[in-house]
Amino acid sequence: MNKEPNIQDVQNALSRITSFIHKTPVLTSETVNSKVGGEIFFKCENFQKTGSFKMRGASNAILSLSSEESKKGVVTVSSGNHGAAVAHAATLNGIQSYVVTPQSTNPVKIQAMKRYGAELIFCESTIESRETTYQEVQKDTGAIPVHPFNDYRVITGAGTVALELINELNEFDFIVVPIGGGGLISGTGVVASDLLPKVKLIGVEPELADYGRMSLVSGKIAPSKYPDTLADGLRATVGEKPFPMIQKYVSEILTVSENEILEAMRLIWERLKIIVEPSSAVTLAAIFKYSEKFSGKKTGVILSGGNVDLSQLKW
Amino acid sequence: MNKEPNIQDVQNALSRITSFIHKTPVLTSETVNSKVGGEIFFKCENFQKTGSFKMRGASNAILSLSSEESKKGVVTVSSGNHGAAVAHAATLNGIQSYVVTPQSTNPVKIQAMKRYGAELIFCESTIESRETTYQEVQKDTGAIPVHPFNDYRVITGAGTVALELINELNEFDFIVVPIGGGGLISGTGVVASDLLPKVKLIGVEPELADYGRMSLVSGKIAPSKYPDTLADGLRATVGEKPFPMIQKYVSEILTVSENEILEAMRLIWERLKIIVEPSSAVTLAAIFKYSEKFSGKKTGVILSGGNVDLSQLKW
Repeated sequence: MNKEPNIQDVQNALSRITSFIHKTPVLTSETVNSKVGGEIFFKCENFQKTGSFKMRGASNAILSLSSEESKKGVVTVSSGNHGAAVAHAATLNGIQSYVVTPQSTNPVKIQAMKRYGAELIFCESTIESRETTYQEVQKDTGAIPVHPFNDYRVITGAGTVALELINELNEFDFIVVPIGGGGLISGTGVVASDLLPKVKLIGVEPELADYGRMSLVSGKIAPSKYPDTLADGLRATVGEKPFPMIQKYVSEILTVSENEILEAMRLIWERLKIIVEPSSAVTLAAIFKYSEKFSGKKTGVILSGGNVDLSQLKW
Repeated sequence: MNKEPNIQDVQNALSRITSFIHKTPVLTSETVNSKVGGEIFFKCENFQKTGSFKMRGASNAILSLSSEESKKGVVTVSSGNHGAAVAHAATLNGIQSYVVTPQSTNPVKIQAMKRYGAELIFCESTIESRETTYQEVQKDTGAIPVHPFNDYRVITGAGTVALELINELNEFDFIVVPIGGGGLISGTGVVASDLLPKVKLIGVEPELADYGRMSLVSGKIAPSKYPDTLADGLRATVGEKPFPMIQKYVSEILTVSENEILEAMRLIWERLKIIVEPSSAVTLAAIFKYSEKFSGKKTGVILSGGNVDLSQLKW
């Protein structure tokens, strides 16, 4: 797949992956709604297989392989969730998977990738090391690369989250999505712009990792310094394939502090009684921070994942 | 209501309270099923309003009051969840609520009771102080008592959890329920024995608070020492009204250690991505401990609540 996906591509992807994923629930919270003065609908990808929305893009990529390609295996680079998803989707289809991951990756996520059947190759926690190791492993193994966000098959699969959400509740003023590499929000944009042309798509980033916002402002991709934000899924900068899609589809990118992320995450745990990871909680943090924007409105929020190391909680 | 409820009473209660409660979801986990070698269905009362099944019994009791009684207000004694439920159900119906609670009650649960509108009266953490303070407040206020488990209206309301579960999935070999005062398991027994006569109803207690088990063995109610188990909702002994119902309906009472409770709770958080309190996790702890019993079987589990102080986690 070498062009930007359209709504039909996402609909086809949802049919393709449907037996490999959960249709995740949409939850609401009286506490959240009364704090915001608006209606917030949480699409719970923390309940997705492997604990994050990444299972959708990984499954779509892997189910799109030819049988020749399947024999070669797949390779990716990931700090956890995408690696676990690629490993699980590959194993379910009898395909070998290799995952390049920094040594600093959350141990819970390392264990998950192993459990799902990945062969792990560790690299340093720098962009250079990630990239060179990823290239080397591709060369050494001959495996097919499935990049976490710079891949239209992955972006298309990620778009199925919004497709399910809008199929269930087809009226929103806003859809709010975290931005890491930009795959989730790009796929969301394809769907939302087609099915709900008036909806405003808002991205959220940690202040410490606002590369999407900087890129949107300057018109060219800002490099990531892989900052030590709690939101470990949002440390990358946006990819070359997502970037023009973000320029096309995203109204605005909001940023939140580490404290705001932690408070929103805690409120989700305490009141919704669900486990989400910091990378998911950025969305609600932004809604609370800019609540006047969301007051009186209907907002869909994608809670992207729930893989947390419970022995490393910061409160 | 001064006699043991039957299935019709529970069905009437479900109609009465339906707009005051959530119909809670039933979740499954591939990880849990493969560990047990059987099918486990979790009825998630942690998602219930006020964060526990107690909202059902409290609502049923309060909606059963005459208008004369309603004017007097209601009073209860609770270490948290029942108090929050009584307060919320009372406030929703414009009724004053008084809750006697030990000073040692979990601060998160104290805040919740206040937030839902209770007037709190603190007592010492002994049975004597709870009981005498409860009597005094009844006398001083003239409010109608709504005991957490020694009350047929409350037991009947608690039975609606199993009614919803069995209405949704009507085939179980076992239903597994935590035992504190015995209200939840008694209400469950009414429903399960009528709708699924072959099902085995299993109670679970912390080893540190196995008063139900001791009472069942000796044939008379064993006194509670209010032990310091993590499962703070299960510190009481069984009440006089639930006890004969437990004798009639319960096949067996299993016990689990504090460590087993903590491990099961952590697994539920990590894999199901939901927050449950220790009093709920005793059920899965027992299923893991005695997994040969549950292997190859279908088991319904009531996850009774999800009110946890996140700043006091023991791992």
